[in-house]
Amino acid sequence: MLIGGIEAGGTKIVCAVGDRSGEIKAKQSISTRDPDETLQEVKAFFSDYELESLGVGSFGPINLNKNSDTYGMILNTPKTAWKHFDLLGRLQQDFRIPIFIDTDVNAACLSEYRHGAGKDVNSCLYITVGTGIGAGLVQEGRTFQGRTHPEMGHVIVPQHPDDTFPGVCPYHGNCLEGMASGPAIEKRHGRKGHLLADDVNVWEIEAHYLAHAIASYTLILSPERIILGGGVMKQDVLFPLVRQKVFGLVNDYVDMGNMNEFIVTPELGDEQGVKGAIALTVSEK
Amino acid sequence: MLIGGIEAGGTKIVCAVGDRSGEIKAKQSISTRDPDETLQEVKAFFSDYELESLGVGSFGPINLNKNSDTYGMILNTPKTAWKHFDLLGRLQQDFRIPIFIDTDVNAACLSEYRHGAGKDVNSCLYITVGTGIGAGLVQEGRTFQGRTHPEMGHVIVPQHPDDTFPGVCPYHGNCLEGMASGPAIEKRHGRKGHLLADDVNVWEIEAHYLAHAIASYTLILSPERIILGGGVMKQDVLFPLVRQKVFGLVNDYVDMGNMNEFIVTPELGDEQGVKGAIALTVSEK
Repeated sequence: MLIGGIEAGGTKIVCAVGDRSGEIKAKQSISTRDPDETLQEVKAFFSDYELESLGVGSFGPINLNKNSDTYGMILNTPKTAWKHFDLLGRLQQDFRIPIFIDTDVNAACLSEYRHGAGKDVNSCLYITVGTGIGAGLVQEGRTFQGRTHPEMGHVIVPQHPDDTFPGVCPYHGNCLEGMASGPAIEKRHGRKGHLLADDVNVWEIEAHYLAHAIASYTLILSPERIILGGGVMKQDVLFPLVRQKVFGLVNDYVDMGNMNEFIVTPELGDEQGVKGAIALTVSEK
Repeated sequence: MLIGGIEAGGTKIVCAVGDRSGEIKAKQSISTRDPDETLQEVKAFFSDYELESLGVGSFGPINLNKNSDTYGMILNTPKTAWKHFDLLGRLQQDFRIPIFIDTDVNAACLSEYRHGAGKDVNSCLYITVGTGIGAGLVQEGRTFQGRTHPEMGHVIVPQHPDDTFPGVCPYHGNCLEGMASGPAIEKRHGRKGHLLADDVNVWEIEAHYLAHAIASYTLILSPERIILGGGVMKQDVLFPLVRQKVFGLVNDYVDMGNMNEFIVTPELGDEQGVKGAIALTVSEK
């Protein structure tokens, strides 16, 4: 039987049809406009397939409290057309099959855990460092959720001694996303990160912020593995810097094992989001 | 049927006999010496009772990985007589009944969740601020564990602008425990915290560090409630300061509800540890 997956992002919505093994049979990327127009196109894509169930990894903030009247509804987002939009309700109306919904980062984490860089461990954290910074946690097969869902990209990080940049986060200024996201790099240095690949100082500062947040995640969540994805992490120079700084910050207080196996690259290319949406519908590893 | 509970701390071991409701029938405090002498006294206390099972909330670090050969063994602790001591193995030999073991802070969190300040919510974080700083999380009835167990008291916190104190943590210097534990207050100000009750500056600095860590816990774990216990938190002036600073740091990015209900005092006096040990043996709320 076929399963549908939707990776709902702020700029595009990726739809895919796959199966329980994680294999993708068909895929389409749809640009995100207003909800009605966008979701009509989503429905049209899936209409060629007989689906057993549908998984959705969505941008946030989104209400994931199953006991709430507004479960599956987009919350207070700057994307005004989507603010308070009942995403799950609309999809249930369009598809009339079981629908499983979670955050985009939890979905991405789940597919790396099942099929990618986390397939040999019992828990992993997936962090995406791009336009925004977010993280999802899977522990023993279950994605982690709380009162609302975690917003790990917004932890406060100590200023790098050589950095006076105030940060770009409209809520917190100098939180992790404010200091280390793609837009933060561009605003601090005047150029996009991929044009600064050879500037050691750029990545020293970037690694400082990422490492402080990762040290906190490690001490608070104690994952077996941390997978770093997203556009900014395509700068390979970051991985050894981040590993070294996290090791120094934690200072052997908790066992992280071999750092090259603790902090790793993703294995699913850019497909962990939509594969994760499909994985949300399947309960075992 | 009766249940035994052991709250194993570095200076004393509290033993109690209770039942599933959380009520304590008998209790004894034993000073912590070397393992053999101490555990003989523990065995003697329980020998008067017919126990169904035994729960243990232990100081750490302790191996809680059930798949490990050294499950239930104390790890690398400064208490040299207990280093690499097989606590669970010894108790299994002494008692020959089912034994449930977790960290002291997870146990304390579980009893507040079942019987105390967390009994009306689905998840809560219990933080103890005393000689050390530690935290335990309960989510939908289960205590949270990772690769090893979390060591949340050791997160790095940004220096208060008026504070030049380097911290007392032998591993990290200025982590939360290094800056905000009882010994940190005493070393920074030259007197114990309870003698400084009227010094506004002391609690302003203390609240700064606690609030930064609590804001991180909130963004990473998204608990429904945070319970602050331990000796340092007996300074009531801290609660409004911490609430106000956490609210400012999170800056409405995630919903914490009413701050007076989000950050609260414990309800079980100093019994949450041993009651939690008993609660570890009972699976439902």
